[in-house]
Amino acid sequence: MRQKVYVEGSRPDIQVPFAEVHLAGDNPPVRLYDTSGPGSDPEVGLPRMRQAWIDERGPGERVTQMHYARKGIITPEMEYAAIREGLDPEIVREEIATGRAILPVNVNHPESEPMLIGTRFLVKINANIGTSAVSDSIAAEVEKLQWAVKWGADTVMDLSTGKHIHETREHIVRNSPVPIGTVPLYQALEKVNGDPVKLTWEVFRDTVIEQAEQGVDYMTVHAGVRLAYVPLAANRVTGIVSRGGSIMAAWCLAHHTESFLYTHFEELCEIFARYDIAFSLGDGLRPGSIADANDEAQFAELRTLGELTEIAWRHDVQVMIEGPGHVPMHKIKENVDLQQELCHQAPFYTLGPLTTDIAPAYDHITSAIGAAMIGWFGTAMLCYVTPKEHLGLPNRDDVKAGVIAYKIAAHAADLAKGHPTAQAWDDALSKARFEFRWEDQFNLSLDPETAREYHDETLPAEPAKTA
Amino acid sequence: MRQKVYVEGSRPDIQVPFAEVHLAGDNPPVRLYDTSGPGSDPEVGLPRMRQAWIDERGPGERVTQMHYARKGIITPEMEYAAIREGLDPEIVREEIATGRAILPVNVNHPESEPMLIGTRFLVKINANIGTSAVSDSIAAEVEKLQWAVKWGADTVMDLSTGKHIHETREHIVRNSPVPIGTVPLYQALEKVNGDPVKLTWEVFRDTVIEQAEQGVDYMTVHAGVRLAYVPLAANRVTGIVSRGGSIMAAWCLAHHTESFLYTHFEELCEIFARYDIAFSLGDGLRPGSIADANDEAQFAELRTLGELTEIAWRHDVQVMIEGPGHVPMHKIKENVDLQQELCHQAPFYTLGPLTTDIAPAYDHITSAIGAAMIGWFGTAMLCYVTPKEHLGLPNRDDVKAGVIAYKIAAHAADLAKGHPTAQAWDDALSKARFEFRWEDQFNLSLDPETAREYHDETLPAEPAKTA
Repeated sequence: MRQKVYVEGSRPDIQVPFAEVHLAGDNPPVRLYDTSGPGSDPEVGLPRMRQAWIDERGPGERVTQMHYARKGIITPEMEYAAIREGLDPEIVREEIATGRAILPVNVNHPESEPMLIGTRFLVKINANIGTSAVSDSIAAEVEKLQWAVKWGADTVMDLSTGKHIHETREHIVRNSPVPIGTVPLYQALEKVNGDPVKLTWEVFRDTVIEQAEQGVDYMTVHAGVRLAYVPLAANRVTGIVSRGGSIMAAWCLAHHTESFLYTHFEELCEIFARYDIAFSLGDGLRPGSIADANDEAQFAELRTLGELTEIAWRHDVQVMIEGPGHVPMHKIKENVDLQQELCHQAPFYTLGPLTTDIAPAYDHITSAIGAAMIGWFGTAMLCYVTPKEHLGLPNRDDVKAGVIAYKIAAHAADLAKGHPTAQAWDDALSKARFEFRWEDQFNLSLDPETAREYHDETLPAEPAKTA
Repeated sequence: MRQKVYVEGSRPDIQVPFAEVHLAGDNPPVRLYDTSGPGSDPEVGLPRMRQAWIDERGPGERVTQMHYARKGIITPEMEYAAIREGLDPEIVREEIATGRAILPVNVNHPESEPMLIGTRFLVKINANIGTSAVSDSIAAEVEKLQWAVKWGADTVMDLSTGKHIHETREHIVRNSPVPIGTVPLYQALEKVNGDPVKLTWEVFRDTVIEQAEQGVDYMTVHAGVRLAYVPLAANRVTGIVSRGGSIMAAWCLAHHTESFLYTHFEELCEIFARYDIAFSLGDGLRPGSIADANDEAQFAELRTLGELTEIAWRHDVQVMIEGPGHVPMHKIKENVDLQQELCHQAPFYTLGPLTTDIAPAYDHITSAIGAAMIGWFGTAMLCYVTPKEHLGLPNRDDVKAGVIAYKIAAHAADLAKGHPTAQAWDDALSKARFEFRWEDQFNLSLDPETAREYHDETLPAEPAKTA
């Protein structure tokens, strides 16, 4: 049996959720990290769990977790996240203070349950959702959010385009127990009718503020796509495949001007600091194929992301760095090593990487291979890839397939990097398996429902499960 | 469009199949390695393609490929396999002569298309099929065989138990264009009514000869499970999980005698040499959980497999070595390095390994991660794991899911280890993707049908595919 339990922190309003699995006989229960949240009616939203912690802070204070960490303060958010990880809160504070980890929590998203993204912590996974021109049901997206966190998504990115972007995001943020990320450039582009050339700093800035007010916890900003780097992608097999990257490249070339995201970066930092939004510095020049991996365009941008990281840190703004993409296995480690060096150990957040291009419809698998490895090498968060990658928009089944594949990758990485709490889960399941405690094995599974169903297909008799 | 083409070798009866993918515009066609065979009516079987090559050999000759290779002879089988790999036949001969590769071809399986298992060649994958007490349709197993090779299985193991084992295997061998492997111990056990203690060398030997006569190309023999090693597994979380390993451990303990497979190994070599059967030296003490990986029981057996390899090679008998199992990522490389050292570079053939224990129902994914890595590190063949692993018997869909996941792992490994012909496939597909040549992208996919179906789900209009 699985049951939600709460562990209390140093004050009664720190209540940290776990999924507790009760086992047969005298086997001790196993507590699993739980992202599912308390559940909500989509039209009402979640309770504002962190509101008191936010209100306690003095007026005019710089409210970023990095600011507090650097001042030596362990916030309730840090303690909460430390309990989730099974680690000392002082480690959490130190990792945030140095920039090696982030705790993304917009002051306007009090519904979220604090979590950590950093190489010393459990590897996290992100699920992308969002409406589009052909599929614009807000209810369907909120359901995908709830579905994604049920299966273990640690953060969710709302990549909505088309109509109702603001309203969709409002519903998502109000119902999300996990940090929400966005790419503000997508909404800014809608405001200029989809023409990248018409984008301006002002439209972009206003969009950022609009989203900041709603409570978005981290934002992808492709500020590293500089004018001078665009020609570096000219001879690639797959050019520029990042949507944000190609929008900014088109703008830079049309105006023959340095990117407004780069030239206005300090102003962005000031806005982000007011809300404690974390940067997710986008890799607009990431490789879109095995052939283009680890090329000069990619690494030129990475060097710039390192410079921008230092600027953000001067404003006490938290930063993570986005990474590729498509990379063959033997070139994966170089990505992490260079990112850690050039970006001063800011957390790395990668899309896969896909380790081959030949398997559309199975890119959750081609990329889970790369994701597991890059997680082991030090990447802090893995952006999922669903079976529909390159082919279409993910439905509910695809979201689940992507989340499960990435939970596997993240946990395999936790084992390999030796996170102190990781292996107990494997050991408990394997012991149950060896002792033919089927129900315990199912309940300890990443996906108890499917494990049970597959078992019952060939051996349906009840005694077979307890024999 | 995909089309089967044949490349002729140095004599007209060497006709090597490829799947040729024709592309739009002036893009050159791409030739893919093809395991599917010419197709057969299950009751008739395949043409005896290699019969003339076998008949050409003189009476009384030692007929193993290793024997010919050591004498400096490039057999038609070697040339055929070299053309499949796009490599010089002399490299093939040399790799077989040194034992670094095997070309498994029982003289009584003339229907099979020669292929190579060795670290310098493309990484291969094996699919397990077979009847059981609860599912004993011969037709269903032949269909699974044909299904597995359609999706890319390079060899198939028939692990049938229950009734009709002989007849099932006869149908499988006669219809298989790929090498067939078995575990003779399973059939021997049926002959003594399932009681391991009643097994004898004579029953085992007669079973091997029976299967050899039918044309089995390689046989798993758990000759490394020695009496002295059994206690080493006593304190494991999951004990002995290999079926062959536990049968032999039970026999050794009951008789308190050294394993008859070990003491009669030279006689086995003499039988194997007569038919050119390859040994697949079984890892009866492989770890069944993350907790048990790389332990003394596992490595003690591996040392013995190295000794047995040298004995087999003295008889010109080809050998590969089986490997685990369940291994966390950071312990995978040690497995290959030790195996290569202790077993004198004989090809390694691993089951996965699974990189975590927490995801029953998704072990094709937990293990594809480990399989890709271990393939990169030098493993020559990867035994697939299906979603039903640990839960039940694979059906048709599971066989496909397992094969596809493992083709991904094998190809990712080929890219990482730099097989000279590997990346052209990725490049052709990525170029098609970048140029929105959807039909070319589908046809180049590992699974064209599913890629097309997923695309059409969200963007069904025909123009969307050619735009």
